[in-house]
Amino acid sequence: MRIGVLTSGGDCPGLNAVIRSVVHRAVTEHGDTVIGIEDGFLGLVEGRARPLGLDAVTGILTRGGTILGSARVARERMRDAVGRAGELASALGIDALITIGGEGTLTAARLFSEAGLPVVAVPKTIDNDIDATDVTFGHDTAVWVATEAIDRLKTTAESHQRVMVLELMGRHTGWITLHAGMAGGAHGILIPERPFDVEAVCCMVEERFSRGKKFAIVAVAEGAQPAPGTMRFQHGGTDAFGHQTFGGIGPRLAGEIAQWLNKESKPVILGHVQRGGTPTAQDRVLATRFGWHAVEAVHAGAFGHMTALRGTTIRLAPIAEAVAHLKTVPESRWTEAEAVL
Amino acid sequence: MRIGVLTSGGDCPGLNAVIRSVVHRAVTEHGDTVIGIEDGFLGLVEGRARPLGLDAVTGILTRGGTILGSARVARERMRDAVGRAGELASALGIDALITIGGEGTLTAARLFSEAGLPVVAVPKTIDNDIDATDVTFGHDTAVWVATEAIDRLKTTAESHQRVMVLELMGRHTGWITLHAGMAGGAHGILIPERPFDVEAVCCMVEERFSRGKKFAIVAVAEGAQPAPGTMRFQHGGTDAFGHQTFGGIGPRLAGEIAQWLNKESKPVILGHVQRGGTPTAQDRVLATRFGWHAVEAVHAGAFGHMTALRGTTIRLAPIAEAVAHLKTVPESRWTEAEAVL
Amino acid sequence: MRIGVLTSGGDCPGLNAVIRSVVHRAVTEHGDTVIGIEDGFLGLVEGRARPLGLDAVTGILTRGGTILGSARVARERMRDAVGRAGELASALGIDALITIGGEGTLTAARLFSEAGLPVVAVPKTIDNDIDATDVTFGHDTAVWVATEAIDRLKTTAESHQRVMVLELMGRHTGWITLHAGMAGGAHGILIPERPFDVEAVCCMVEERFSRGKKFAIVAVAEGAQPAPGTMRFQHGGTDAFGHQTFGGIGPRLAGEIAQWLNKESKPVILGHVQRGGTPTAQDRVLATRFGWHAVEAVHAGAFGHMTALRGTTIRLAPIAEAVAHLKTVPESRWTEAEAVL
Amino acid sequence: MRIGVLTSGGDCPGLNAVIRSVVHRAVTEHGDTVIGIEDGFLGLVEGRARPLGLDAVTGILTRGGTILGSARVARERMRDAVGRAGELASALGIDALITIGGEGTLTAARLFSEAGLPVVAVPKTIDNDIDATDVTFGHDTAVWVATEAIDRLKTTAESHQRVMVLELMGRHTGWITLHAGMAGGAHGILIPERPFDVEAVCCMVEERFSRGKKFAIVAVAEGAQPAPGTMRFQHGGTDAFGHQTFGGIGPRLAGEIAQWLNKESKPVILGHVQRGGTPTAQDRVLATRFGWHAVEAVHAGAFGHMTALRGTTIRLAPIAEAVAHLKTVPESRWTEAEAVL
Repeated sequence: MRIGVLTSGGDCPGLNAVIRSVVHRAVTEHGDTVIGIEDGFLGLVEGRARPLGLDAVTGILTRGGTILGSARVARERMRDAVGRAGELASALGIDALITIGGEGTLTAARLFSEAGLPVVAVPKTIDNDIDATDVTFGHDTAVWVATEAIDRLKTTAESHQRVMVLELMGRHTGWITLHAGMAGGAHGILIPERPFDVEAVCCMVEERFSRGKKFAIVAVAEGAQPAPGTMRFQHGGTDAFGHQTFGGIGPRLAGEIAQWLNKESKPVILGHVQRGGTPTAQDRVLATRFGWHAVEAVHAGAFGHMTALRGTTIRLAPIAEAVAHLKTVPESRWTEAEAVL
Repeated sequence: MRIGVLTSGGDCPGLNAVIRSVVHRAVTEHGDTVIGIEDGFLGLVEGRARPLGLDAVTGILTRGGTILGSARVARERMRDAVGRAGELASALGIDALITIGGEGTLTAARLFSEAGLPVVAVPKTIDNDIDATDVTFGHDTAVWVATEAIDRLKTTAESHQRVMVLELMGRHTGWITLHAGMAGGAHGILIPERPFDVEAVCCMVEERFSRGKKFAIVAVAEGAQPAPGTMRFQHGGTDAFGHQTFGGIGPRLAGEIAQWLNKESKPVILGHVQRGGTPTAQDRVLATRFGWHAVEAVHAGAFGHMTALRGTTIRLAPIAEAVAHLKTVPESRWTEAEAVL
Repeated sequence: MRIGVLTSGGDCPGLNAVIRSVVHRAVTEHGDTVIGIEDGFLGLVEGRARPLGLDAVTGILTRGGTILGSARVARERMRDAVGRAGELASALGIDALITIGGEGTLTAARLFSEAGLPVVAVPKTIDNDIDATDVTFGHDTAVWVATEAIDRLKTTAESHQRVMVLELMGRHTGWITLHAGMAGGAHGILIPERPFDVEAVCCMVEERFSRGKKFAIVAVAEGAQPAPGTMRFQHGGTDAFGHQTFGGIGPRLAGEIAQWLNKESKPVILGHVQRGGTPTAQDRVLATRFGWHAVEAVHAGAFGHMTALRGTTIRLAPIAEAVAHLKTVPESRWTEAEAVL
Repeated sequence: MRIGVLTSGGDCPGLNAVIRSVVHRAVTEHGDTVIGIEDGFLGLVEGRARPLGLDAVTGILTRGGTILGSARVARERMRDAVGRAGELASALGIDALITIGGEGTLTAARLFSEAGLPVVAVPKTIDNDIDATDVTFGHDTAVWVATEAIDRLKTTAESHQRVMVLELMGRHTGWITLHAGMAGGAHGILIPERPFDVEAVCCMVEERFSRGKKFAIVAVAEGAQPAPGTMRFQHGGTDAFGHQTFGGIGPRLAGEIAQWLNKESKPVILGHVQRGGTPTAQDRVLATRFGWHAVEAVHAGAFGHMTALRGTTIRLAPIAEAVAHLKTVPESRWTEAEAVL
């Protein structure tokens, strides 16, 4: 068979490990030809692709990013592309497509699949917000990077009596913040699932200082929201020229704490450091297993499905299910985390 | 309640994280008193213990080892101790015991439980050989340490045309070697579950060199065995004084390859580096969750049970089940790994 | 002798390693008593101190922060304290004092020394801005943390065609940014010593994209300044309530690039992550050597001096010299860095 | 100009960083053509080389190993090659050669230089045994890898009352062991420069246990020798087939301690893990600076010289000086280390 593979959406450690695994399994076991499509669906639309042999994937297992690239496609253009799915496939001479991407990619994969381009999807998200799989590659690496930052912040906060506010990724879900906060031993964990009261955060800090623990680490997801009316001061906003000034929830919360308690309070923004670099061992193994099973799914004709981890086993799940709703942090997980705050 | 806690058996990153979590949950939520028993069952027998408050567990989340220590107890003495289980418990004034340890500890926990000392167990093994849980803390850290070693060995092996043989922990199961081998991209993965033919390993190396890939990394579990009669040379053995000379399967296999193919072949033995140091984020989170659930299990009276991870949820499993048999690497997992060798 | 030791000023990885080394050398070799003064000069003024024996420094070698703490003292109060130097010393019963700190601390050390409290100083700065020593502990760790961030940013920037602006510490000197930029292979290195032209930065980025290298990493020191009039847009500033809105040079420059070139451009602010956590091996060794030599200097009566690294040797330098002027990045070092941009 | 560059001798983190820097400086500043010679002097002899442009060195800064490879050449063949130096140079069409390598390479470089092939050398050794430079790239990385191992061993040794013997690289000098031992806080540091008394090591361990510190870490250089007659037991030796059985000083010393004190004593052998993988920031910076200065030296006609670090400055030193004698650990450095054992 001729199998196309593409990566789409934001970066995620482990993409290259999936590509490598797909090529190894397809070429070695099935004698397939693997076609690497460049810049995600854009390459599919523009017919930009190259064959991927074993040599092309040598040494990429440990590298972050994706050797195939990724780019955005305007909605209009995507709709049009779906309409010409079969045509695009034959233009590249591929019998099936493996897409590696997050929610948006899964939705597109499903549309193409229904439009007659046989697709198997590999789910990708550092946010751990895809419900149909226990977890996917990339999340563990993001959590590890964030945890190492908390480890470093703790010693300096403690010996210098500071409050540190670490803003982490997670617009709609708090998994990275929850896991890194637990792993790093943060004193405050603020996630989108639970609007927080700024005063409560300040009280927690105050109370720690009064107990003689003269420092605090607060991990806050970029999407966490203060409960309406609990933010006393205005931060950021637009400047005189109408340009949005920088300042996410991290800096704003640090500002609140500083002004409220009159204590030194510093923001840290890891940003894309959480998305880049070499994947953890766990992410490399999971990505490799997903690639293997994606190829098998193609040969089994299980199109419209995606690979998923359930316990220790890789299963196939209908893409439709996967995109049905976002996996958010449930009350039970929050209760576990709360105990060690 | 007064809850005793002890750590027993070999070292495992995450032990302190469990202890910390047990103390936090028991003290903060239930107002329990936690008694830290020193040096595992030895402290139980000798009545050596100290109360553990929140301050006692501050800052231990990220530290390897165990603040409670661990030591061996002669079988005789253990049998006797089990007989006096109730007596030992009242001597320490504990109503229940949380044991953190591997197979041996689980067996002991079960005996004490049956002998009238209420025990809840937290499973511990870097080897991932406990069947009743998807995985336990410590394994991910061991795999990460081994993977980082492979990452470093690869560049040097490649540029200097060497064969590197990395001996990893795992007497009876190959999980660390399987996962680190997959994550590091080893070219040979040798595990106890599958006796290996030395000639086949040499042929793999030879074949790589003939393909122009002038290096090879072989990950071998300490318990991996060459198929009878496939080891051509004798290595190690006992010296003139009858003392066992050093030389596990790693050095022996490196010697075989060197002599068989007349190529530079170097052994590396990570040994206890795999058991020590700060746990990965994943291990810290899992250990923390296990501690939380162990305390809840005590208050629920679920004695004779152990905490277990199933998918993303923590369940309780009867200890009896847990120790029924060893979790070895199944054929299906091997097939996945084989594809990228 | 009774030797007092204190840490003062901002955090710096290696402070604990110096303290440990001072105690080991003083106690083991000279039979001295070491008095740990709490919260820097504040503890000296308030007479807060505790004896430090070998046990007190066990296990601190690898830990960031300082077990003695550090705090600010109002100028007034410092001046007054200097006047009572001898009195404060006898209050604590110390014959000599070892201060571990940066420029401010060195100046204070000199004043106390002249006022009759015998002081030997150990220089401390992550910024590498003390002229009398080749380098001091903490800098290597800060550079390593920043370099690891660049390593991670590179893969994600490359595969997703982004511009990343990493804001690093360094108000007055660019050493951290220079070294991390060279080590990470940044495409732009902006330091306080060289006002930069925003347009030039944008052109560099543009030019890279036109060459097909569709990404760029810019490392900018917090104290780097755009040449007057080269910043086209206003960012940050004060909000409606007159509160300073967050937004250092990093976010502002990222905003400039984004608006100027209409390309995705993301800021990352490592902040105090650069000051915390376990020191690198190099920093631990240097800190240990400094502690050893500080104790020898006390016994040699070399007061008013500080330890300094010259080549591979530790020398003593008059504190006066050390604080004479700031060590900035010289033209020669810049030229070396420029070649690989 | 047409400048040849080759890497020779054992692996060393930073080789690629030098190559990259040479290409950048030569091409960008001087418009030179850089010819990469494959497999060290073997490629020179066999005329195997390829042009290296900027693209050829993209992304290699962070990678261990060498993209040019390295191989051994028989002494005979080298002598013959030196005789045909000019001829080999013109065969490759190079006007000058930059060699990156250790002692052997420096000697060869000198011979070629004297034989009419203009050579500038860049010193390379993880062992830090080249006298003409304060340090060279690779050493810091080796020390860091070894230090991380000690960090991990410490927690497990402590909580499980074990003695750990870590065998590190260094046949003739103890720099890696000295620095890693100091940085990791080892309790015993054994180096080739100082034959050790096995009984003294055992006493140190015994004494620690008697003080209640129930563990010990011993860092031993592979070239460290027990004082004659102080090793009581025989270990290793040759097996029945006359093959040398594995067992360096690490395992042998661990065996001695185990039998002498009847305590669990485990050897760890990091081996080539110390030579591989990504360089530390410090090594990347130094390697980059060396490459820059090597190119300048070529254009200045400073042949027969090598780059050297003196304090914070790169100087040129006559190769002859550099290879005059080995840089060993001096008494003064030992005394500093001894204080914290």
